Amino acid sequence: MTQRDPGRLMQIGMAFWPAKTLLSAVELGVFTALSDKALTARELQHELGLHPRGVTDLLDTLVALDVLARDGEGEAAQYRNTDEAAHFLDRNSSAYIGGFLEMANTRLYRFWGDLTEALKTGRPQNETKHGGTGMFEELYRDPQRLEQFARAMAGISLANFETFAEKFDFAPYKTMCDVGGATGQLSIFVARRHPHMKCTTCDLPAVVPIARKTIDAQGLSERITASSLDFFREPFPKADVITMGMILHDWNLEKKMQLIQAAYDALPSGGAFAAIENLIDDERRSNTFGLMMSLNMLIEFGDAFDFTGRDFDGWCRKIGFRRTEVIPLRGPASAAVAYK
Amino acid sequence: MTQRDPGRLMQIGMAFWPAKTLLSAVELGVFTALSDKALTARELQHELGLHPRGVTDLLDTLVALDVLARDGEGEAAQYRNTDEAAHFLDRNSSAYIGGFLEMANTRLYRFWGDLTEALKTGRPQNETKHGGTGMFEELYRDPQRLEQFARAMAGISLANFETFAEKFDFAPYKTMCDVGGATGQLSIFVARRHPHMKCTTCDLPAVVPIARKTIDAQGLSERITASSLDFFREPFPKADVITMGMILHDWNLEKKMQLIQAAYDALPSGGAFAAIENLIDDERRSNTFGLMMSLNMLIEFGDAFDFTGRDFDGWCRKIGFRRTEVIPLRGPASAAVAYK
Repeated sequence: MTQRDPGRLMQIGMAFWPAKTLLSAVELGVFTALSDKALTARELQHELGLHPRGVTDLLDTLVALDVLARDGEGEAAQYRNTDEAAHFLDRNSSAYIGGFLEMANTRLYRFWGDLTEALKTGRPQNETKHGGTGMFEELYRDPQRLEQFARAMAGISLANFETFAEKFDFAPYKTMCDVGGATGQLSIFVARRHPHMKCTTCDLPAVVPIARKTIDAQGLSERITASSLDFFREPFPKADVITMGMILHDWNLEKKMQLIQAAYDALPSGGAFAAIENLIDDERRSNTFGLMMSLNMLIEFGDAFDFTGRDFDGWCRKIGFRRTEVIPLRGPASAAVAYK
Repeated sequence: MTQRDPGRLMQIGMAFWPAKTLLSAVELGVFTALSDKALTARELQHELGLHPRGVTDLLDTLVALDVLARDGEGEAAQYRNTDEAAHFLDRNSSAYIGGFLEMANTRLYRFWGDLTEALKTGRPQNETKHGGTGMFEELYRDPQRLEQFARAMAGISLANFETFAEKFDFAPYKTMCDVGGATGQLSIFVARRHPHMKCTTCDLPAVVPIARKTIDAQGLSERITASSLDFFREPFPKADVITMGMILHDWNLEKKMQLIQAAYDALPSGGAFAAIENLIDDERRSNTFGLMMSLNMLIEFGDAFDFTGRDFDGWCRKIGFRRTEVIPLRGPASAAVAYK
């Protein structure tokens, strides 16, 4: 009998190896050290404070993963960033997504170690597990960490926000309010592409100065207002279009309905509510990342969960929206849009 | 400016999500529960003792990863094993690789959480870190866990052992000794395919009864002897071919050389020494799994490491072997062979 190859299953089950290798490399600042120069393994070892044992294994794994390039072999070999790494993983790049990966490295990797317990108990496995405060509470206490987090989340959403600004038809509308808008990136893309639009980006008071800084830097403060909103306690500002990026999935069904209702209340007839998320496909068969994001919501919040376009449609119609549609963005992300 | 898509880097960095999902599913026995029947999410929830919150997210992620199949949608949908899952992930299958994945789930996932520390200190990050005994000491204390581990390791090596028995030219030889042979699987494949070969499989005394059981079950006890060997303390039994599967990488250079010397001493002139490993490619650019296995040796043992065919060639020639070659097996594995 010919033995079958367990290679594919081994690759899935052991994928925490390449993941953690990349996360540790980001944590150690490998890609930032290579920002403007190529270095040998020995030079990187000294610059990053590494022990000699693991340094070439680390660097050559990154070469094999195609995130570093290497010229030559042996001790004289020089390592440098690939274009992709230089763009996304160097802390000096404006497109840095390492903030998110650093968060994944410090928090999520360990919390996911308790996935089995989460599946058995339905309870979160993050800081709150041993009496710590929740993730958001922690973040909002430290302005610098909050800014880092907001920029990290923006970093991984940039391409989606840009695609939404391109694909969604803003012609019938004049105003947009982005609820939970963090650094204001979505408003920036919309304002840039659609000169007739006026935008408001809302978030908790601690986030407003971060958004204002970003908007000023883009010279868009005439057309984008950053304002404070506690979205469960205050009505949303009136606008023709209400957007929420990666917000709805953070909450249980009751709170999701409360947010959709608040969006409905703030819209005129004909207005649109758009949730930008890793929307799960209706058949729940293909958007692996969206499905796992929902497991991540279990890890972070317990009863929060990700959802399909069909789920979104059901909830929105219940509240009174006329119809919904799904606009695919990049990779696993889509915009679920409901029209009043 | 068009935003580039960070999708590939996100996929690598977040790959601990699909990995841990599969590992938790193996731990929970999802594939064993579906051994002989299809079940709904609710039935699986009860059978596996899960909380309702996460069960469909777990199962549908496994569908998206193509390790479960699902017939239908919604509450009546039935989940069943794919052929691949039935073959490799059901505890009732003789090709079960879940033993290795269970070990990865219980041990390696968490230890890899300390990869950064390992890279900074060069020290192991397993049980030994907080004064526990090492992995092997632990295993050899508990015969049942030892048998599980030996079978798990055999499970992921079956296809490689079979390929080695096929590809290596046994015609010039009459006897083989497999050093650190665990359950005796390599000897079984060689004896089955080459009726002229007599094999000995050697391991520590605790492992011998496990090997004997496996060999008896195959009706091969006439041609395969299971015997006891402490490979650092005793000379290897004389044989025309000496093999070692996933042994050399467990040790530092000094001990590697000691093992290669012991193999040399046990071989006749013209004899062959074969190390079956996830041999790193000479350029250290393409065998990602082999490179990461070397990082895993750092995590497990500190100074142990994986190696290239070129490294192996240098060590073997130093000891007196005439020449070496590399025989590719399945996926990331090869046999490095040295001829005396």
